[in-house]
Order: sequence, then structure tokens, then C-alpha cells
Amino acid sequence: MTIENLQDYMHTLGQNACTAANTLRLASTEQRTDAIKAMATQVRLAQQNILAANAKDMQAGTAKGLSGAMLDRLKLDETRVLAMADGLEAVAALPDPVGSEDERWTRPNGLTIAKVRTPIGVIGMIYESRPNVTADAASLCLKSANACILRGGSEAVHSNIAIHTALVAGLKSAGLPESCVQYVGTTERDAVGHMLAGLGGRIDLIIPRGGKGLVGRVQKDARVPVLAHLEGRNHTYIHKDANPDMARDIIVNAKMRRPGICGSTETLLLDKNAESMLPMLAEALQTAGCELRGDAAAQNLVPSINPASETDFMTEHLDAILNIKIVDDLAAALAHIETYGSNHTDAIITENQGAATEFLAKVDSAIVIHNASTQYADGGEFGFGAEIGIATGRLHARGPVGAQHLTSYKYQVLGNGQVRP
Amino acid sequence: MTIENLQDYMHTLGQNACTAANTLRLASTEQRTDAIKAMATQVRLAQQNILAANAKDMQAGTAKGLSGAMLDRLKLDETRVLAMADGLEAVAALPDPVGSEDERWTRPNGLTIAKVRTPIGVIGMIYESRPNVTADAASLCLKSANACILRGGSEAVHSNIAIHTALVAGLKSAGLPESCVQYVGTTERDAVGHMLAGLGGRIDLIIPRGGKGLVGRVQKDARVPVLAHLEGRNHTYIHKDANPDMARDIIVNAKMRRPGICGSTETLLLDKNAESMLPMLAEALQTAGCELRGDAAAQNLVPSINPASETDFMTEHLDAILNIKIVDDLAAALAHIETYGSNHTDAIITENQGAATEFLAKVDSAIVIHNASTQYADGGEFGFGAEIGIATGRLHARGPVGAQHLTSYKYQVLGNGQVRP
Repeated sequence: MTIENLQDYMHTLGQNACTAANTLRLASTEQRTDAIKAMATQVRLAQQNILAANAKDMQAGTAKGLSGAMLDRLKLDETRVLAMADGLEAVAALPDPVGSEDERWTRPNGLTIAKVRTPIGVIGMIYESRPNVTADAASLCLKSANACILRGGSEAVHSNIAIHTALVAGLKSAGLPESCVQYVGTTERDAVGHMLAGLGGRIDLIIPRGGKGLVGRVQKDARVPVLAHLEGRNHTYIHKDANPDMARDIIVNAKMRRPGICGSTETLLLDKNAESMLPMLAEALQTAGCELRGDAAAQNLVPSINPASETDFMTEHLDAILNIKIVDDLAAALAHIETYGSNHTDAIITENQGAATEFLAKVDSAIVIHNASTQYADGGEFGFGAEIGIATGRLHARGPVGAQHLTSYKYQVLGNGQVRP
Repeated sequence: MTIENLQDYMHTLGQNACTAANTLRLASTEQRTDAIKAMATQVRLAQQNILAANAKDMQAGTAKGLSGAMLDRLKLDETRVLAMADGLEAVAALPDPVGSEDERWTRPNGLTIAKVRTPIGVIGMIYESRPNVTADAASLCLKSANACILRGGSEAVHSNIAIHTALVAGLKSAGLPESCVQYVGTTERDAVGHMLAGLGGRIDLIIPRGGKGLVGRVQKDARVPVLAHLEGRNHTYIHKDANPDMARDIIVNAKMRRPGICGSTETLLLDKNAESMLPMLAEALQTAGCELRGDAAAQNLVPSINPASETDFMTEHLDAILNIKIVDDLAAALAHIETYGSNHTDAIITENQGAATEFLAKVDSAIVIHNASTQYADGGEFGFGAEIGIATGRLHARGPVGAQHLTSYKYQVLGNGQVRP
């Protein structure tokens, strides 16, 4: 494709999306729900096509030397395709976030004002590897009556196009325009640039989902609003008044349940007055297969702890590695999180309600937790049904982003002839 | 100032603002309320200084040949200064939007999740002419516990600095850092460019307030999120089932109460089946001093109506000029608003509940009104106490923006030892 052709192609996607967004804005709850259910049916019917397309991507990925972790994220099998279809049905079953009233009040002059949820319009989604994001993103956008333009990673292009074909078949069978969900059918890198420029004012919001490199590029270059999930440099602070058994169970889960997810704890902050717990905590973590990297104080207490560098405390390991720092008190824990955290998810373990209240109020993260695992940082665990990511910024939406966060609102003002004095 | 010096100067403002934002985030409701009240006191005490500074601006503005309307917006007198102080006290009296709980729910595993309002951080405010915006913006940002960096128009620089000096005296007397409210003390145009670039990641949100030129530049160049108020090309649609007296009273108010505000109606859409009302409506509007510009059908009905061009229907007149178009039916009115509107405020006048419901659902504007004047598009009229503008985008906040819309939120997750299965 020449550059001019690419621009035309991308802008046509934008125009189609705007037209589809206008249709979706006025489509009934039933129509949108039926379309998501039909998408699930079509994904099941297309299973063989999807697996065949995925095999091509896996072959190319292996030839290109993708890492084992990358290949695992890319790989689909029967179970994963059926899980994708089940995920679509779970989103279909959620309450409709559009048209619901947040608030209604009446003014002294008799005007009644209702704040009603509306769609945003056109959402551009830019993501990497996991092909199931194609179905997840499409269903959450459709649930919230937004049109979407999807651009997955080039390594998953065959899988994504096969999934998209099934989704479009679902849209058609439910009588909604195909352009409600469009996939960028070219792997040219400049296609992303066009999306970030907004396709001539036709994209209302960009959501990147992937590694730090991708998200950073999107944040730097986008000329339209971005709902970004940067990284989760999360802390669990074990306060002096923590219950030791609870502390052990939580820290092992917070790091080791799935070390590679963004809600995983990367650093344990252990209160100096609870340092006697360290051997017991270290043993439980090491038994679970975790490498420990600690400051000098932690190493003195448990010699099997490796040294932690300054870089470690700034790193989202996404692996079975936990940083450990001994802190003087709650204030020192707060100061560490302020400097090294990423405003994602941080937890305190304590039986002391005052300390917990202070921690929850003072830590400026999207999710702050008392006496539970940071691995609960997840839209499904929050009851949102599904999530499109966890927003680490402070504009529009923060924390797990579900269908209800992909909406805007309008005010309906109901009068009986009022004129303003 | 050299360019390097300007960059240093601006980045220092950004650093100070971040530090102040951290203090503000943890300041109590009382501290912030007291500071706003103290600012009101100091504005009253500084009245003579403020008026003397304003006289300089007025003199320079007159010499520069500013229009009468511009000079009127720039001018301060005793009444306006006292109104500014009263406005500060009104904001002080509003409920605190920070720390309030939007929602709280408990999950089947016993985790309780509370969604709690938090500040955004640092807000950059770029505005024109009216010096009272300096006090309004500072008070709304302080109310929502955000630090702000203010940059007013160069024509009002002496007035703004005098007002800012009074505000800072108020902050100091209440024990809050001066940097909670900073004013860009240089009229160099590049200072705005630095703000739009985000001062090295230190500005969280930019709010422009002014004409289309300013807002357009900010939207085009900003590398940080923008809460923009573009223009109000607002419509009042008189449906065939409108009560004629109500229709007349509303349209006269909607255009003529204050033709120059953004909630003013710019175009009357009159249903063909109600066209017999036109002579009566035209007479009332013309008696109130309004120029009418209509399509051919309207001119045929009332010969004193001037012809309207295509451009008129695309123009926010902000003056005593009203466009008139005869439309076939509700669908035609909706289609006109879709093409010519600006998603700000649109109204329908009808006794027909079905038509009203359809209009309110289908018009995609921040404010949609049934049987009342579009001049109610105002934060004060909504009960928000004061507004920093009316947002016409669909991200973060839409419609009148009060202190509660200058907040973000975080999730507090309260457990008793939960680990994720």
C-alpha cells in the first residue's frame, strides 16, 4: 500500500466507524445484546478456521524466534477459543451501561435534571499478542454502544482476522452494521500512526493494551485522548500489627498466584517492628518458587535473600522475583510507594484500623487494599464482568475499565415552560 | 526572558505545583475551605490595588483599540470586585467533592469495594479577558484539592496579577503553600506552548477558556488531556404540538436574555405544522430587538425576516441574531441538529411526551432540554455552585464543569485476609 492509499484506507475506516457509531447510539439494548450473543455463536462455529489461522501465526512466530512466553500468549487451542465465546456471552449478560441514570434532581424553579449515560463514539484499540483481546474489546465496545477500530499485533494477524470475521458474521446476523467492529487489515506500522492522529477527528478515544513500549509510544504520539494502562509496580506493606499467618498467605498469593499479571506485587515492604516475620515469610515464598531480592537489612536477617539494586525497586518484574525492603514505619512505607510506585495497586496488611485508614487515604493509587492480595486488581474480581485494562491515569476512568467506563453522559433537563430570570 | 530561561521558569512552576498538589491531596476539608474564605477576605482588602491594576489594563486596551465588548469584559469596578469575593465564598460553602464515596459494594468473597473521589493533581488554566476567571478557577481547583497554574490573557495581566496576589495572601493566612495557585508571570506567548507540552509531565489537565481560536489552538497543540468548551451552536425546536405562548416566551428568553452567552439559542427550528405561529414569534423577537434570518419558507411567511445563508446556520452569533428554519417534522429537526449543531445544548418545545422523549434520546448534546430555555445551560443553574466552563467533548466530564468534575477516584478494597483463588 502506498502512503496515500494507506491514509485513504484508514480514513475510510474512520468514516465507517462514525456512521456505525450513530447507528449504535440509537440501537436498543436487545439489538446490542443479541449481536454479542450471535458473535459468541459464530466464534464457536468458526473454531476450525480460527485454529488454522492461529497455526499460521504460531509457525511464523516460531520461525521469527518469538520467546516461549510470547508464543504462549499467541497460542489458541480449543479450550481458549471456547473461553473466548464464553467471555462474549458473559459480557452479553451484563447490565446495559447505556441509558442508565446516574442521578436525578429537581431545582427550586421546578426543572428536573437527569444525568444519563451515553456512548463515547468511536474507540481505537491498539494491542499486542493475545488474540482473545480482539473478542474482548469488540464485546465491551458493543456493550457500551461504541464503534471500534481494532489493530492487533502483526504476529497475531491471521488469528485476529479469523476472529474478526466471526464477530462480523455475528453483527450481520443480528442486523447491525459490519462497521461496528472493524479490524485494520494491514500490518503496516504507519497504520498505528494514522490512528494516533485520530483519523481526521473521527476517533474519540484510544486504548493501548500491551507492553510499556507500545503504551509509551501511544501516550507520546496520540493527538486524541488515551486511556492508558502503564505498569503495575505494586507494593504490599506488612505493618507491625499484621497477623503473621494472614501476611504470609497474602504475600505468597500476591506475588506467586500469577507472577506475570499487572496486579502482582513486585515489592514487599516489611515494617522494622515486624522483621521477625521475615524468615517465615521468606521460607514460604521460596518454597513457592520465588526469588527474593532484598536490601541489606533483609539480607542480614535471611542470608538466602539476594541483593536488590535500585533498579529492582523500579522494575515491574512480571516474574517470580520479589523485592524486599525493611522500612522504619508507615510513613517510610508511604514515602517509598510515593517514589517507586506507579499508581496502580498497593496493599497494607495490618490489624490496626488507624494505620489501614491512613494508608488507604494517603497512597495515591488507582486501587488501595487492606488485608487482601493485590492480585484482586481485576475487573472481573471487582464485579465489572470483564475489563479492557486497568487505567493508571486520573482522567475519565481509573482502575479496572469495564463497559460502564466506556461511556459518557448527557444531562436531560425537563421543564414546563421555565425561562431564566 | 531567553527561551532557556522561559523553559526553566515554566518547569519550576510545574515542580512547585506538583509539590503543592501533594500537600493539597492530604489537606483537610477545613483547611481548603478556610483558604478559599481567606482569599475572599483578601480580595476585598485588595480592592483598591485591583482597581488600580485594572485601570492600567483598560488604558492599554483602549490604546491598543480593543473593541467595546472586549473592554467591557476586561473592566472591573467595585461591584465586580465584590462579586468576585462573593463568588469565592459561594465556592467555599459548597460540599467538599474530595473524599466522598460514589459507591460501595461487597463481593461474594467478602471484599468490600468503595469508590472514593480524589483530586486530579495539577490543572493548567489558559484563558482570555475576564479577570474574574482568575479567582473562579483558583477557587474551583482549590475546592477540588488540585494545584493550578493560571495563564490569563496579556490584555488583563495587571488585573490578574493583582487578583493573584490577593489569592496568595489568602492561601498564606490559611497555612497552605503559595504554590497551590500560581500565575504565569510573563506575557510571552511561548509560555502557553510550554504549558501545552505539559511542563515535563507535571500538568495533568489543561482547561482553556476563551474564544474558538484559543480553544482550537489548545486542542490542536496540547500533549496532555484537555477539557475543552468549544462553541454553542444551540437549537430550539418548536414542535407541532407546542403551546404557542410557552414557545414564544421560551424562544425570546433563549435568544435575548443574554445573546452573548454560550447557552444562547442560535437557530429556531419551527415545525411546518406549527408555521402559523411564526408571525407571532417573529413579532415578539423583533420587539425584543432581535434580527431574524430565515430560510425561504420563513421569509415567505414573514417578509421582515432577512435571508439566512448556509454560513449563518453554522455560526455561533453570540449576538441578537436568530436563524430560523422551517422543518418538515421531528426527524428533519434531528437531522438539522446532527449536521449543524455543536453538541452543546438543544431544546424541544412540545406538549407531546413521545416527541420530547425521542428528542432527548436522539440528540447527542451535552445538555438536552424539554420545555425550557437553553439559557439554563449553566453550572449555577444546575446547582453546581459555580462552573469553570461547559465541556463539549465526551471524555472525563461533559456539560457544566463544577468542582466535583475536577476530581478523579480511587478504589479502596477492604478485606480480611482474602487471597485470590
